Order: sequence, then C-alpha cells, then structure tokens
Amino acid sequence: MSEIYTVIMAGGSGTRFWPSSRRRKPKQFLPLGDGITPLLTATVRRVAPLSSPDHVLIVTRSDLAEATHEACPEVPPGNILLEPVGRNTAPCVAWATAVIRRRSPDAVVVVLAADAHISDEPAFVAALRVAAAAATTGAIVTLGITPTRPETGYGYLHVGENFAGAPEGVRVVQAFVEKPDAARAEQYFRDGQHLWNAGIFVFRADVMARAVRLHLPGVADATAAFDRAAEVGTVEEVHEVNARYPGLPNVSLDYGVMENEHAVAVVPVDCGWSDVGSWQAAWELGLKDGAGNVLAGVEATVVDARGNVVVAPAGKVVALVGVSDLVVVDTGDALLVMSRDRAQDVKKAVDALTEAQRHEVL
Amino acid sequence: MSEIYTVIMAGGSGTRFWPSSRRRKPKQFLPLGDGITPLLTATVRRVAPLSSPDHVLIVTRSDLAEATHEACPEVPPGNILLEPVGRNTAPCVAWATAVIRRRSPDAVVVVLAADAHISDEPAFVAALRVAAAAATTGAIVTLGITPTRPETGYGYLHVGENFAGAPEGVRVVQAFVEKPDAARAEQYFRDGQHLWNAGIFVFRADVMARAVRLHLPGVADATAAFDRAAEVGTVEEVHEVNARYPGLPNVSLDYGVMENEHAVAVVPVDCGWSDVGSWQAAWELGLKDGAGNVLAGVEATVVDARGNVVVAPAGKVVALVGVSDLVVVDTGDALLVMSRDRAQDVKKAVDALTEAQRHEVL
Repeated sequence: MSEIYTVIMAGGSGTRFWPSSRRRKPKQFLPLGDGITPLLTATVRRVAPLSSPDHVLIVTRSDLAEATHEACPEVPPGNILLEPVGRNTAPCVAWATAVIRRRSPDAVVVVLAADAHISDEPAFVAALRVAAAAATTGAIVTLGITPTRPETGYGYLHVGENFAGAPEGVRVVQAFVEKPDAARAEQYFRDGQHLWNAGIFVFRADVMARAVRLHLPGVADATAAFDRAAEVGTVEEVHEVNARYPGLPNVSLDYGVMENEHAVAVVPVDCGWSDVGSWQAAWELGLKDGAGNVLAGVEATVVDARGNVVVAPAGKVVALVGVSDLVVVDTGDALLVMSRDRAQDVKKAVDALTEAQRHEVL
Repeated sequence: MSEIYTVIMAGGSGTRFWPSSRRRKPKQFLPLGDGITPLLTATVRRVAPLSSPDHVLIVTRSDLAEATHEACPEVPPGNILLEPVGRNTAPCVAWATAVIRRRSPDAVVVVLAADAHISDEPAFVAALRVAAAAATTGAIVTLGITPTRPETGYGYLHVGENFAGAPEGVRVVQAFVEKPDAARAEQYFRDGQHLWNAGIFVFRADVMARAVRLHLPGVADATAAFDRAAEVGTVEEVHEVNARYPGLPNVSLDYGVMENEHAVAVVPVDCGWSDVGSWQAAWELGLKDGAGNVLAGVEATVVDARGNVVVAPAGKVVALVGVSDLVVVDTGDALLVMSRDRAQDVKKAVDALTEAQRHEVL
C-alpha cells in the first residue's frame, strides 16, 4: 500500500483565546484539550498510527518556525514548510502536495488543521484508514463529522448515495454547503443527510496535483516553480517560495478545488471532533472537578464556585469564591475575567487593546 | 492650650483583604480609600491639623516596624512603639499615654485606629477639636458616628443628656452597647439615641493614667516599669516592654476602662466614617467609572462590565467582559476572583490556604 503523509495546516492568528493566544502564539500552541498538550502536538501524536513524524509536514507562518519546532521536536525541521504570508488553504495544500510527490510519488496525503480536538482518536484514525483506502482508487475523500447539535458556525457536507467502488459507508458529497442560518442548521441536524465539514481531506498526491492544475493553474505553476528551485537547493526553494507566495490567490481548498470536483467521497465519522472555537469550547472539553470547574494545572482554592474555566501561570495561587460560569485567564502580563456565555466578545477586548496600541499583549 | 498628641493603633492581622493583605502587610498598608494612599498614611495626614508628625505615635507589631516607617517617613522612628505581641487596645493605649506624659505632662491624647476611612475630613477634625476642648476639663471623650444604616457589625454608644460643663452638643455616654442583632440594630438606627462606637477616644494623659491605675492596676504597674526603664535608656525600655508585654491582660480599652468610668462624654459626628471592613466596603468607597467599576490605578479594558472592583499590579493589562459585581484582586503571586456579595467568605479561602500550608501567600 502507498505511504501515507499527513499535512498539518498550522497558520492562524486567532484572537479568540486572548490573552493566552497572541500573534506569536496562536491557538495551536495552547493546551486546550487536556490542559497540558498543545493542540498541534496532540495533532502530530494523533496521526502517528498513519504517518510517522518524518511523514508529517507542517505548514505554518515563517515567524512561527521556532515555536512549531519546539512544539513538535520529533518532526524533522525540513518538514516544516514556512509561508511568508497566509494565502488560505489551497496554495498551502498544493505546495505541501508537491513536496510530498517529490519524496513519494504514490503517496496518499491526509490534510487537516492543527487546532482541533478529537475525543475518540481510535474512531478518527479508523475513519482516516477507510478514507485512505478509498483515496488509493483515485478519489478525493473528505471526513464528514456527525453533527451533535444544530451548529451555525460550521459549513456542512450534503451527502448522497454510496460512492461507487469504495468501501461500505463511504458516500458521495452532493454539495459543499455554507454556514447555515439557525432554521436551516436545525433541518440539517435532523435530516440525516448533512455532516459537518471539518476541512479534513485525503487524496493521492498525483490526484490533487491534477485537480490543482485543472482548477487553479496559477497555483500549479507556482508549485512547479518551487519544485524546479528545490532541485537546485533549499536556499533557492525558499527564495522562490518567498518571491511567489504573496502573488498567489487567497482561496480555500474547498472553494478553489473541492466544489469544482464532481466526484468527492465522504467518510462519515462520529469521533468527538471540535474546532475548539472559544473559551466556552475549552470549558466544554476540559476535565471538570465536582462543581464543573476546569482547573487543569492551576493551584486553585475553590469556595462555592461552579462552572468556571481558569488558566494561570505555574505556581500562582488562585482563589474562586462564590463565582459561576466565568472564564479567568491570567498570563502574567494580562488578565481576562469574562462571563463564559460572552466568550465570543473577547474579540471586543482585543479590538480595544489594538486601538490602544497595546501591542505587547497582543 | 495643651498640646495634642495622636496615638494611631496599627496592629492587626486581618485576612479580609487577602490577597492584598498578608501577615506582613495588614490592612492599614493598603490604599483602600482613594486607591493610592495607604490607610495608615492617610490617617497620619488626616490628624495633621491637630498633631504634627512628631506628635503622632504609632503602636504596631514588631515585625511591621519597617513597613510602618516606610508608610509614614515623616513620623520620627522614636514615635513608633513596637509591641512584641498584641494585647488588644487597653495595654496599647496605657503604654502610649505613659510615653506621652513623659514628653508633655499636660497633653491631650487622641486615640484612633490606623485602618479607617473618613470621607469628610474637615467635619472629623472639627469634632476632634470639640472633643479635645472637652477633654481639657478632665473628661474622657469619645466620638460617636451618626449611623447611616442599621449595622450589626459595630458596637453602639447609647447617648444621654448634655455633658455638664462641655460645649453645646457634647453628650453623656449612658452605656457602651455590644454589637446588636438585626432587630435591635434597626431600633438603634431609628431612635436617635444611638451612635456607632468607632473606638476613637480623646483624653488628658493624666486622666487616662489615673483611670488605668484604677481599673487595670496590673497594666499601670507595667507602664510604670516601662517609664523607669526608659529613664535608664532606650535599650532598657525595649527590654522591659518585651519582658512584660506578653504577661499583660488581653483587654480592650472599652471593656477594661471606658465601661467602668461613669462620666464619659461623646461628640456626635457625621463624617463618612467607615472601618473598611471588606472588599465590599472597598468597592463602596472607591472612585467609580460610569458603570460602577472601581479600577483605581488599573489598566483596565471594560466591555459590558458593571459594579466590579479590581486590583492589579502596575503595568498589568486587565480585561473585563460581561461580568458584574465581582472582586478581582491580582497580586502577582495570587489571584482572587470573588462575588462581591460574598466578601465575608474570603476568610474561607484563607483558611483553606492555611490548611494547605501555603504560608508564602498568607
């Protein structure tokens, strides 16, 4: 069977986890799952049954190179691809696919984000194995997450009949559906014909290269130029990437490639996937004490306090007295105290600090 | 007219302002009034119209000598009396009175606590002047605070007719009344015959010396021994104090002296007095923004947050999002997040930390 490579997309500049997240420390470096392991590190470990670390590529921002290496020391530095600027997922996947083809022309590629949490890892890995098997036949395959609520924050996959020639359970993607309004989300949640689009794709490297050439020829030209430069040397490759990347279109793989392919397969999976979108999600995922407080790694003294999530520096003594459903995040230089149901509004605080030019805490 | 000396009682080991207050930094060192000036420092400044700093004596714990000197550099070090152990207010006042008599036999003495806040300082000083005038005639005088609510946390003074020979408005204290239950407090609040006992006393030094000799002869013997040692030298005085103080009775001036005197006068005053008993009181006293937040000296970003009181280290960025009526106190090594209406329960957190032997933050 073909070798399986995994591409972890680890750009991002989210502010939803401020003050823990910063421009130089985005969400994938935060231990939002178990309170100990950064999401990126957990992602590398999660795919280890399919791709050993030398078969893992991480695509990230240039200024995150060192932090990425520190979070994943087992991934060879040559596997960390540095984007000079972010250009959404299509250029990122096209480039990583080209790099993998040079190393292993028959490879199957798994693409996923660095900053999700998955509670049932065996189910997830099993689904990826099914997807990889389907991909070897030439299909582009996506994972579709069984919805657990009528979520309006995700895109959906409208699924159709069984995918011809694929294992039992693999279905055709009839359509990629944008984030719905509440009424439509409720319908999708109930009709059994819609799955969450988690942005997880599996394909043969040559198949993706063909698709990029067909739908995004400018991107294909660029990756061909990266290939030629790489044959000369690493310095030349970096130079070429830095020169051409800013000119690439800012387009997602979904929009630029997938929606134009007429035979995308989907493997449905129920694996406790979460995109960990806010401090509220961090509380939902976290290990709770008897009163529903998430206090991972914090030296907390709790008096009649319920449903709080707390982050604090090592050694700091935190006392909660008579408070409920708060987000308390202390990073030494900054402190956020927020009602958990206002987790989306952390952005307003970040905007105010940006306005006030408090760059040292952003 | 006689010289007026002021004795500031500045012992205390309160835990109600944890984590700002510590064993080595009790409440009088905290800027709980204006957010900038420690209560002790404010007390020294407040009495300046009556007693210049060289006429101010501060009685405190030995281990607070340096902190006291730093908070009040204008008070001569020789005016800071160091108790080896706390023995409540009677021995403290008796000792300070003896020291003052040696310096100025005719002096009038004002005694008050280091850790109260007074919003109308001119009214307070005017009342002390009236009290001092009454004291020169030989009366022991106390200030009685006009109640502003049916408080159950204070003792009361039951007032009687005018005090013979004293200025208009000075009344007889009929009785010192213990902290009442709610029904009785309500009655005291309404009957116009009860004032709060703030523990503020004014008397001639020789009058108090006579009263102590009469009611607490053991204490009078000790202060006489301190006097004799002081005539030999400062080292001898310290030695004598340290030797005898632990053996003195632990008794308040109210209980040990005042309640046994049959002619105590009271000057009623409405001066915005508060004993600043909890973080709730600190919020009540503090300067508020338009949404009722007390944020003195804190770099705070506020998004839909109301009625909070925040303390944080200089330079720390604090963001409040959608939270109400909280106490948030960050001291660098410790963080308290508490519902304001649970301010009495900070003690429970301190007890838990004591149990856990976290002495470094107590």
